[in-house]
Amino acid sequence: MSRFLAACRREEVDRPPVWIMRQAGRFLPEYRATRARAGSFLALCRTPELAAEVTLQPVARFGFDAAIIFSDILLPLAPMGVEFAFPDEGGPRVERALAGPDDWAALAPPADGAGTACVAEAIALVRERLPRETALLGFCGAPWTLASYLVEGGTSRDHVAVRAAMLAHPEAFHRLLGVLADAMAAYLRQQVAAGAGAVQVFDSWASALSAPRYAEFVVPALARLLHGLDDLGVPRIVYVSGGHLVPALAGLPCEVVSLDWRADLADAAAALPGKAVQGNLDPAALLAPPAAVRAATRAMLERVPARGYVANLGHGILPATPIESVAAFLDVVRGER
Amino acid sequence: MSRFLAACRREEVDRPPVWIMRQAGRFLPEYRATRARAGSFLALCRTPELAAEVTLQPVARFGFDAAIIFSDILLPLAPMGVEFAFPDEGGPRVERALAGPDDWAALAPPADGAGTACVAEAIALVRERLPRETALLGFCGAPWTLASYLVEGGTSRDHVAVRAAMLAHPEAFHRLLGVLADAMAAYLRQQVAAGAGAVQVFDSWASALSAPRYAEFVVPALARLLHGLDDLGVPRIVYVSGGHLVPALAGLPCEVVSLDWRADLADAAAALPGKAVQGNLDPAALLAPPAAVRAATRAMLERVPARGYVANLGHGILPATPIESVAAFLDVVRGER
Repeated sequence: MSRFLAACRREEVDRPPVWIMRQAGRFLPEYRATRARAGSFLALCRTPELAAEVTLQPVARFGFDAAIIFSDILLPLAPMGVEFAFPDEGGPRVERALAGPDDWAALAPPADGAGTACVAEAIALVRERLPRETALLGFCGAPWTLASYLVEGGTSRDHVAVRAAMLAHPEAFHRLLGVLADAMAAYLRQQVAAGAGAVQVFDSWASALSAPRYAEFVVPALARLLHGLDDLGVPRIVYVSGGHLVPALAGLPCEVVSLDWRADLADAAAALPGKAVQGNLDPAALLAPPAAVRAATRAMLERVPARGYVANLGHGILPATPIESVAAFLDVVRGER
Repeated sequence: MSRFLAACRREEVDRPPVWIMRQAGRFLPEYRATRARAGSFLALCRTPELAAEVTLQPVARFGFDAAIIFSDILLPLAPMGVEFAFPDEGGPRVERALAGPDDWAALAPPADGAGTACVAEAIALVRERLPRETALLGFCGAPWTLASYLVEGGTSRDHVAVRAAMLAHPEAFHRLLGVLADAMAAYLRQQVAAGAGAVQVFDSWASALSAPRYAEFVVPALARLLHGLDDLGVPRIVYVSGGHLVPALAGLPCEVVSLDWRADLADAAAALPGKAVQGNLDPAALLAPPAAVRAATRAMLERVPARGYVANLGHGILPATPIESVAAFLDVVRGER
């Protein structure tokens, strides 16, 4: 039985399962070698054999309890008619930003999953090769986070354009989030059908919103997405950035909430009855010396609930993270010192 | 009697006083004209006659209840030996980032206020020319926010370097924040002596920290800074970014907490007994049409406490803000429609 899946279901486990957001990629030398062979980031995402290879690399090196398929949250937007690029410098760029209601209405719901078949193929390859007890996660971007990319035209520091568009055109924005929710539910179903045993929805830009706006616009779209998976029986994890939005997620149909480093694990567990929590070491702590990493990890573990806890970082691992920091983090989580 | 000062003291007022963070500059055509005459942003800050002129412009146009001296939070770092630049594109840049403890120890506390005399002169000029009932605010950056600029070498999206430095060198980082707190207390005293009737401390990058780290590192430095003004009797305002840190400020020696758009005014007032609150309309709302601005302002005013409230935005006004949005916001706050 998978330690990871048991913890998601709040069953008893021998120790917390552990994986790391963005564990496939960025900081690993073996990743950089495969990435160079692929030629481009998008080619790596879209070549099942290579995507499977980098997905498996961190599990082989560190023995994580879960793997997460190597991909990007923008990928399923391509079959909806959105063109984007991943330049070597800077974040992803949407070629033509969808600034307002007319652009949003033109967003075409995806057809039959053909545009994301490469992700499903990679999942199938990974599932074949992964140790049986290691869980495999599929994932997607949350409707709000995807809408931010679409309206801003890329990564934004303050998400001002999307906040303004939401307030200026509330009804059309609700519809946009609904279209994205349905598309992402279909995409996650495709990933589960291919072999993913759990799914994570990343609301990486949630922290730009107040709790009332989040409850008004975003939570209904998240609920719609998650309810689209009701019959599958796989754990649904929602990652939410920012420390102030955790209580807003209490009513969502998900089994796990993944917390960013600004939230408190104990407070969050109390605010989310019936749900497991995941997280939330500050990724910046892994840039400090190993002794500081161990101290920070121990401090985190003092705040975890008795049941229903998955160890992780509070955000994606940073590209500059030393391997020995990851080892120090894992040693403490596994009770080895 | 100043409506603004009365509200800061939680006395009864006829209507909420109102001003806007960054009201001097950016979005006003008369500002852009003076800025062009000055030649550079730093020349504008450092020429008392011109700094006074742009400080007075928004009061003349909109009749705000308070003016805030036109300056920048990095200015008082120059007499401490820090060199910086304000390029026309992008945020400010510290020429040599102060990455670690050795750099921090070399930071020289400022001498006699000579390096910031231009700010004091501008304050004196503004106070002479400002209507008697209009308050004049001095300001400074909070120790954490200044430390982020110093360690990151400029504006940072995620503040990873300063978070890592803090965790790697906690004792030296505490000392750095203490040096900055003392320097800023002296700087604010200089501004009050020149004629400022209230002061605001901007912790613009607070939101990058968890509440426990904020309480451990930042709150003691803020308390030290604010206690340095105990004998002056002027209202002390602390602006804090992020929605999750408000309760951490409850014990601070300040009269007003200025909230960002993600906090809830009513919840914050309840969490801050004895203090007034200021804020917190989303600046992005002012990019929406006037009807949406009015609706958002009305929704905000439904959450304000009966006493001790100053109307403002939840962050600095955006450069692209139309004049008519400001007018719509002011109309609603003043009860004119």
